[in-house]
Amino acid sequence: MSGSIDFNITRMGYIEFLVTDLERARDFYVDVIGLYETERDAEHVYLRAIEDREHHCIVLRKAPQPGVSHFAFKVECEEDLDRLHAKFTTLKRPVRWLADNQRTAQGRTLLVQDPLNFAVAFYAEMASAPWLLQKYHLHRHGCPTRLDHVNVLTPDAHRGYEWYCNDLGFRPAEITEGEAPEHRIWASWLYRKATVHDIAVMNGPGPRVHHAGISLMDPMGVIRACDALAGAGYADNIERGPARHGISNALFVYIRDPDGNRFELYTGDYLTTDRNSEPLRWSLDNPRRQTYWGPPPPRRWFEEHMSVHDIMTGKPIPPTEPLLRAVPTYVD
Amino acid sequence: MSGSIDFNITRMGYIEFLVTDLERARDFYVDVIGLYETERDAEHVYLRAIEDREHHCIVLRKAPQPGVSHFAFKVECEEDLDRLHAKFTTLKRPVRWLADNQRTAQGRTLLVQDPLNFAVAFYAEMASAPWLLQKYHLHRHGCPTRLDHVNVLTPDAHRGYEWYCNDLGFRPAEITEGEAPEHRIWASWLYRKATVHDIAVMNGPGPRVHHAGISLMDPMGVIRACDALAGAGYADNIERGPARHGISNALFVYIRDPDGNRFELYTGDYLTTDRNSEPLRWSLDNPRRQTYWGPPPPRRWFEEHMSVHDIMTGKPIPPTEPLLRAVPTYVD
Amino acid sequence: MSGSIDFNITRMGYIEFLVTDLERARDFYVDVIGLYETERDAEHVYLRAIEDREHHCIVLRKAPQPGVSHFAFKVECEEDLDRLHAKFTTLKRPVRWLADNQRTAQGRTLLVQDPLNFAVAFYAEMASAPWLLQKYHLHRHGCPTRLDHVNVLTPDAHRGYEWYCNDLGFRPAEITEGEAPEHRIWASWLYRKATVHDIAVMNGPGPRVHHAGISLMDPMGVIRACDALAGAGYADNIERGPARHGISNALFVYIRDPDGNRFELYTGDYLTTDRNSEPLRWSLDNPRRQTYWGPPPPRRWFEEHMSVHDIMTGKPIPPTEPLLRAVPTYVD
Amino acid sequence: MSGSIDFNITRMGYIEFLVTDLERARDFYVDVIGLYETERDAEHVYLRAIEDREHHCIVLRKAPQPGVSHFAFKVECEEDLDRLHAKFTTLKRPVRWLADNQRTAQGRTLLVQDPLNFAVAFYAEMASAPWLLQKYHLHRHGCPTRLDHVNVLTPDAHRGYEWYCNDLGFRPAEITEGEAPEHRIWASWLYRKATVHDIAVMNGPGPRVHHAGISLMDPMGVIRACDALAGAGYADNIERGPARHGISNALFVYIRDPDGNRFELYTGDYLTTDRNSEPLRWSLDNPRRQTYWGPPPPRRWFEEHMSVHDIMTGKPIPPTEPLLRAVPTYVD
Repeated sequence: MSGSIDFNITRMGYIEFLVTDLERARDFYVDVIGLYETERDAEHVYLRAIEDREHHCIVLRKAPQPGVSHFAFKVECEEDLDRLHAKFTTLKRPVRWLADNQRTAQGRTLLVQDPLNFAVAFYAEMASAPWLLQKYHLHRHGCPTRLDHVNVLTPDAHRGYEWYCNDLGFRPAEITEGEAPEHRIWASWLYRKATVHDIAVMNGPGPRVHHAGISLMDPMGVIRACDALAGAGYADNIERGPARHGISNALFVYIRDPDGNRFELYTGDYLTTDRNSEPLRWSLDNPRRQTYWGPPPPRRWFEEHMSVHDIMTGKPIPPTEPLLRAVPTYVD
Repeated sequence: MSGSIDFNITRMGYIEFLVTDLERARDFYVDVIGLYETERDAEHVYLRAIEDREHHCIVLRKAPQPGVSHFAFKVECEEDLDRLHAKFTTLKRPVRWLADNQRTAQGRTLLVQDPLNFAVAFYAEMASAPWLLQKYHLHRHGCPTRLDHVNVLTPDAHRGYEWYCNDLGFRPAEITEGEAPEHRIWASWLYRKATVHDIAVMNGPGPRVHHAGISLMDPMGVIRACDALAGAGYADNIERGPARHGISNALFVYIRDPDGNRFELYTGDYLTTDRNSEPLRWSLDNPRRQTYWGPPPPRRWFEEHMSVHDIMTGKPIPPTEPLLRAVPTYVD
Repeated sequence: MSGSIDFNITRMGYIEFLVTDLERARDFYVDVIGLYETERDAEHVYLRAIEDREHHCIVLRKAPQPGVSHFAFKVECEEDLDRLHAKFTTLKRPVRWLADNQRTAQGRTLLVQDPLNFAVAFYAEMASAPWLLQKYHLHRHGCPTRLDHVNVLTPDAHRGYEWYCNDLGFRPAEITEGEAPEHRIWASWLYRKATVHDIAVMNGPGPRVHHAGISLMDPMGVIRACDALAGAGYADNIERGPARHGISNALFVYIRDPDGNRFELYTGDYLTTDRNSEPLRWSLDNPRRQTYWGPPPPRRWFEEHMSVHDIMTGKPIPPTEPLLRAVPTYVD
Repeated sequence: MSGSIDFNITRMGYIEFLVTDLERARDFYVDVIGLYETERDAEHVYLRAIEDREHHCIVLRKAPQPGVSHFAFKVECEEDLDRLHAKFTTLKRPVRWLADNQRTAQGRTLLVQDPLNFAVAFYAEMASAPWLLQKYHLHRHGCPTRLDHVNVLTPDAHRGYEWYCNDLGFRPAEITEGEAPEHRIWASWLYRKATVHDIAVMNGPGPRVHHAGISLMDPMGVIRACDALAGAGYADNIERGPARHGISNALFVYIRDPDGNRFELYTGDYLTTDRNSEPLRWSLDNPRRQTYWGPPPPRRWFEEHMSVHDIMTGKPIPPTEPLLRAVPTYVD
């Protein structure tokens, strides 16, 4: 199959969160989490992190309901967009080019409803923005470095794995296998850039987005982020952690924004430069998989997810129940 | 009352943990937690931390049951021991001098059953031991700096507060008050040395020891300690945290040793140099008191405690139920 | 001698830096160093750190020349001030009470020219200010916790040691001894509060102040402080370090403010609770004394110092050359 | 030119240091620096770091003189080795396949004397070794994660830049330009994997190796590495830093091993996922380039380098003087 891949997805690009109170969300992400506002208009706030040299990695968009309007991958060149357009058209999937006023600071942007029913955008160009990496006097709290990945739920995660690897050219860094004898893939951590993942595809009711993963500069950033959240009155928005995942080795904390959108602040994963390496394999019911150490996740971490939207109607898509059970045996 | 205090307790001295497998306990505290073995014999292992210039701050003693045989405060001079002997004799409390073979590396050591029924020792002299603070090539994992405090349960914590402050000269750094209208003290953090506490006295079934508090060199030590525990196969011995207490501002993790004895690794409290300062006051049901941020404590953190022993018979003392409720309202 | 000490100095209190551009100095200490402005008037900016519960630990005062107008120790009670007044009067040293407009937020304040010719103030009361320790969303960069100590130069450091220990009740934590056979004290680190020092008294042309020592919350604070300084365009104000002292075990960096006043940001020293402990003794020419590891100090670190002022005329006091050589043999 | 690149170099592979006392070197790199011994024989010690899943990233080889016998890049597949063999043969450069006993745990290994006269090896396969990333109980001190890069000196760094980019397919992350009007490249930081560099090519007498760069897990690792070195008696082996480079944003310290071989411990660089990005450009005489903050480098850091060897005779190659001046104007 991979012989048919004639485009080059280079990395996770951005995610667009829907928020009901734009001002409140902006203050949360900028003043407490430590992202930077590049630009805003009446409907959007465009945020970037300290490693970014481009305009945004997170967009906040005013909407009546929270959730994820879409997430986007960056591709290497403009021609890749046309090849992806052809591919999704051939697959008879919904596809459209974003209107000019829907792609501030972005070049041509293709929006598709992929075969897993996720709203996914692709773009090759984004306007540059001042680099903040060495503007240390402006760094705050957890000090986010980049949008690293999204983590999504789909009713057949094995099929999701195949879609991303066989059709889009992702490589697996780590895999969670379901029960014998099939050992069907229950979740996979898939990358294009040389980290553990650009996207994780998990078994569950979908299409749903579980979280966006934002990387931090160093492990103390996880502690400083929690401190800043609590100091600002957001202690209850810390949903899970700090703890360490077995998978990916991430030291993490999961946070709900004031609208309930979920993101992970994390650090400590590793380079995946050797693309031919065998993926690490974990058993679903190995408790060290999810929690190498740390408190058990609350049940809502497994049960609450962000809605995904129809790219033509803009409406939330109702989820389909998963083929495999959605929660490991060790969760109470 | 304080006019009658004619001795000077200077600080928390050491704690003696009872362990059923001395070798296993030694390997846990030395290889994983990062304490140092100063000396051992058939029945004991003597441990110190990197700030210690004396022989031990934790003693592991082989016993048929886990628990705390006693904990000890250091006093300024030998005469203080005689004055304490007189005080406890006047109070008609059980009191005895430890036999030579029960006080390795210690000078004269007075052991008493105090009015709260705890087994408490006092000593003025301990043999010196090489200072490890700048032996950085020997530091490991969480890097414990000192035994900082003990935390105990007693059925009338208000009376416990008065005993320590009025009779022994401790100062309160922070106080948890019970419900109106009495605002009876539910717990207090009491110091002689200039940190938040040498002892915390909490409302609960007692006499019981909740935990020993071991300070770390820096906040990353909490993360490194968890990592080392999980790497060595002890992830399930992490009972609570990492998280931050409102009280004392400590960044902490609670750990159960292989026998179930509980200790806290913590960092981030503050100096209490201004002894005349008003103590910080917290309401029992303020959730930020126990957990400034972080996951909720498991119920066993509230309900399981270490037994305390009779200084004459060596037998565990059955606990008495507390006057006030023992668990805050916000615990499930 | 110590029998005659009828007062209780509790700790280093504050230092007043003279600055030629009050606005520039305020922006440097607040926006880059991370101190907090409690109050200001046309001539002064009052700063505090995150552990402070009182109004100020550093005062910036507008003046035609940089330097230190005076530094201050806190005492336990008002009566201590009268006893100190009597002592300095008996010694026929210049002494005066600060006028109301010279002691914003302070109670009665005694200012003396001590026998070493330093301008030193004493006070028992200071107005309280909101505690910032748990206001983590307001913490920035190196995150200073408190003014910890001053380090001063005097031509006869042995005499200075005796003055502080015998007349004022300080205890030595560490001592640098000069050459055999006398082993005259070349420098001493002296404490009242339970850290390594409230004041260090070094051999050199004096009276001069070498630096004020400001403690940080954790070792990463030293790195973050350097990053913030460089990001804000102040890289050249970093004079020495980061490195670690053998003496005091401090991880440190020395910084010159925009007027050239010098302070140290440091972390990593230890508690000095056991006041009867023998001080650690170092040989002057042991290179690990000054620099346990790290780059050699530049010569100006040894040769440039802050001027000290006459409490009656307000004029700088010309320094007297030291009895012993002022620079160790290992400095180029 | 890049049209002719028919092979895929994936990353820096390993470096072989020559050491005069194998036991002493092994103890230094393992016990103090925190690398892990995978295997040893009479002539070699094979070391790996915690991110490595393969046998070695640093080889210590017993030799009469210190220096670098060769460094190696990993390629994607065996065919790449044949294509590289053809390329170097066409260029009439010395080339040979390593004998079986010279490539312990490695597959076929091609050794060449490249056009810059460096001894460089290429290999596609290396035996796997247990992953230590989550064996936290075995982590020590600075906790090296991987061999990240080498930094080399060549008399014509502009030509070196062209060789690596045009002939071997490297991409520039950052560039130092010489004086106007030519702006000839004085140094370049070139990558294949998605970090700032696999190799830096600097102007200077060459062929010489300036240092090997070893990445650490987090910024505190730089402090812990210095502490461990000093604790073990190696404080004088710290040659430069801790400080931060402007180029690459690395928080670093340079260390000389007991034979004088130089390596850098560093952390804090950034991902170079966007391969089409314009490189960052620095002026040679911008002092923030080399030292974003920190003490000035000692002159020996500029003047002392590791010798490079002839792949046929095994003898050190005498260096040629550079075309441009070798030391920036701001070095004393």
